[in-house]
Amino acid sequence: LRSKLPDVGTTIFTVIGQLSAQHQAINLSQGAPNFPCDPQLIAGVTRAMEANRNQYAPMTGLVTLKTLIAEKVATLYGAHYDADSEVLITASASEGIYCAISGLVHPGDEVIYFEPSFDSYAPIVRLQGATPVAIKLTVPDFAVDWDEVQAAITPRTRMIIVNTPHNPSGQVFSRDDLEKLAAITRNTDIVILSDEVYEHIVFDGLKHHGMATHPALAERSVIISSFGKTFHVTGWRVGYCLAPAALMDEVIKVHQFLMFSADTPMQYAFADYMSDPARYLSLGEFYQRKRDLMQTLLAESPFTLLPSAGSFFLLASYEHFSDESDSEMVKRLIVDYGVATIPLSAFYTDGTDNKLIRLSFAKDEATLRAGAQALCQVK
Amino acid sequence: LRSKLPDVGTTIFTVIGQLSAQHQAINLSQGAPNFPCDPQLIAGVTRAMEANRNQYAPMTGLVTLKTLIAEKVATLYGAHYDADSEVLITASASEGIYCAISGLVHPGDEVIYFEPSFDSYAPIVRLQGATPVAIKLTVPDFAVDWDEVQAAITPRTRMIIVNTPHNPSGQVFSRDDLEKLAAITRNTDIVILSDEVYEHIVFDGLKHHGMATHPALAERSVIISSFGKTFHVTGWRVGYCLAPAALMDEVIKVHQFLMFSADTPMQYAFADYMSDPARYLSLGEFYQRKRDLMQTLLAESPFTLLPSAGSFFLLASYEHFSDESDSEMVKRLIVDYGVATIPLSAFYTDGTDNKLIRLSFAKDEATLRAGAQALCQVK
Ligand SMILES: CSCCC(=O)C(=O)O
Ligand SMILES: CSCCC(=O)C(=O)O
Repeated sequence: LRSKLPDVGTTIFTVIGQLSAQHQAINLSQGAPNFPCDPQLIAGVTRAMEANRNQYAPMTGLVTLKTLIAEKVATLYGAHYDADSEVLITASASEGIYCAISGLVHPGDEVIYFEPSFDSYAPIVRLQGATPVAIKLTVPDFAVDWDEVQAAITPRTRMIIVNTPHNPSGQVFSRDDLEKLAAITRNTDIVILSDEVYEHIVFDGLKHHGMATHPALAERSVIISSFGKTFHVTGWRVGYCLAPAALMDEVIKVHQFLMFSADTPMQYAFADYMSDPARYLSLGEFYQRKRDLMQTLLAESPFTLLPSAGSFFLLASYEHFSDESDSEMVKRLIVDYGVATIPLSAFYTDGTDNKLIRLSFAKDEATLRAGAQALCQVK
Repeated sequence: LRSKLPDVGTTIFTVIGQLSAQHQAINLSQGAPNFPCDPQLIAGVTRAMEANRNQYAPMTGLVTLKTLIAEKVATLYGAHYDADSEVLITASASEGIYCAISGLVHPGDEVIYFEPSFDSYAPIVRLQGATPVAIKLTVPDFAVDWDEVQAAITPRTRMIIVNTPHNPSGQVFSRDDLEKLAAITRNTDIVILSDEVYEHIVFDGLKHHGMATHPALAERSVIISSFGKTFHVTGWRVGYCLAPAALMDEVIKVHQFLMFSADTPMQYAFADYMSDPARYLSLGEFYQRKRDLMQTLLAESPFTLLPSAGSFFLLASYEHFSDESDSEMVKRLIVDYGVATIPLSAFYTDGTDNKLIRLSFAKDEATLRAGAQALCQVK
């Protein structure tokens, strides 16, 4: 049996999740909240189910939900998307990323992306018979070197994948990043796939500089977002996708055959729930408190925290006290100290080891305190 | 912008759904129930959500649900699948079909499938850079001519896609079909993708002859099923996939990057609910009553019904009283008689017109009566 993805092993999230469960470790690994969502959101799902909203939704999503998203994006970012033809409800942000790459990238194309990165981009590109071209972000600030991007562009470059706020580093794009990306792609037919699932999780009064805030970028971008990350329900599998109609048409063709439609009662619940913008606008402050708590609690630990400007991740460095690989360190933290994190090397195809581990602070206060306490013991 | 699927237009389900809504027609088109699901199933979702089962499920699915499926398949079909490595919970049967084709079909491969067929198979094959090879089923009994299949096999044939009970014809495989398929594929490395989403909807005391009932076929098959079709919740987007571990590994690699995991609260609800086998074993009788009612009511209509042995579809012929195309007929039925169906030509890539329309009888009694009454008026 010839594999199309011969190098893919068990995902790091499963590996760490199992080891963590086995050792009953405090789990700061996967980017999933361990606290309850708002009961009103649950009530919305129940209400929809009881009103018999249990059959196929329209293929591209519920009209009310698509309209609310178009309104949100217009208000927050000043961008105008047609709710009917330029907003697509997907069965998770993951599905949206897949459909965008599969719909727009042809065999033989090249796709530029940055590492460290979420582990799905490169395999999805490879599944299209295309070539992923990784550009390494510079440690420790994980800034993009746009000259390096410019130099990596060839006539076969079809797409650049960006991600802001960035998983796993917590860094965010500035207006200047957008200007440089716009300059580089001007007069090309390069499409930008922008993973913005943490769009509402930005700290310290910073703004989210997503592609929708920059008209020249918006017109060549497919933007991905997530309801799960925003409303603390990562298991509900609903996300959305924004793109100009010509690009969106190709994304929808894949979605149509891959999923047909996303979960119906959950779409109704999100439409009900997001009609009050405070519910997503408060998210940055909510997570900033958690980040701040974690930074305070870990000040006494042997780890050095890198700054996090968004997302719900923090990177911690240990190179000043150990030369273990990050995988060894993560394993030791689980087995000896009962706390689970993710080795940064999992976010590089070549397993680059920067002696950094990733902590998720999307956890309740008791978990953050217990996790920090364990990390403070580390020798 | 070069399209990877240049020939794909708006799906027939959207086209007919919109025209039907516009004319407030009685909707016998899409294969989705219009009656409530069991309130106990809804209670299961609510219970799971309230117990904070709202974050990512394990990547391949909830262990309890996978175990129940393995047990069901062992009991009903005598086939043994390892719950851990040979059962995958997917975010809809559609996603399972996609992952199986994408994981196992390479560029340049050929994939044999039958027409008429559900409209996703051929485009998904094409998205892999592979060639779909359509074999037409013979009207009116839609039996497979296995000699024709044998003759279509080339060294590049990688997969044969079968579907029993069959959408749109309602025909089912016999034991003899399985024997012939086994004979044809013996000593080849052809994989069978078997869409069995209507496995529990078989009539007149017939058995479901799925691939799991035939060991030589089971060992080369990826079997797809659906919770939505079985429990009257097509909008909940959870299905499953069975395959021997070596095949399953490749299907899982795609699922991992495409969806990561399926809806969590709904998986809990299905696990609760399917622990009582009567809930799926009663389905054949339930739909048989609807089929019988429809046959009785339409006996006075100008249409000639073809027999249906499974699924929730019936085909109706009109060639003895009109030479309109099936699309014209369907449009006229909506506009002039207020009843929506699907033209069979939508299930052929070349638009073959057999003067047949497809009716879905997954509807409550009032709808079936009203729909039949409208069809009885047709001239
Ligand atoms: C689908 S795995 C979870 C993605 C994420 O949140 C993470 O990087 O931990
Ligand atoms: C995903 S479209 C619905 C599939 C089906 O049930 C049909 O053929 O009507």
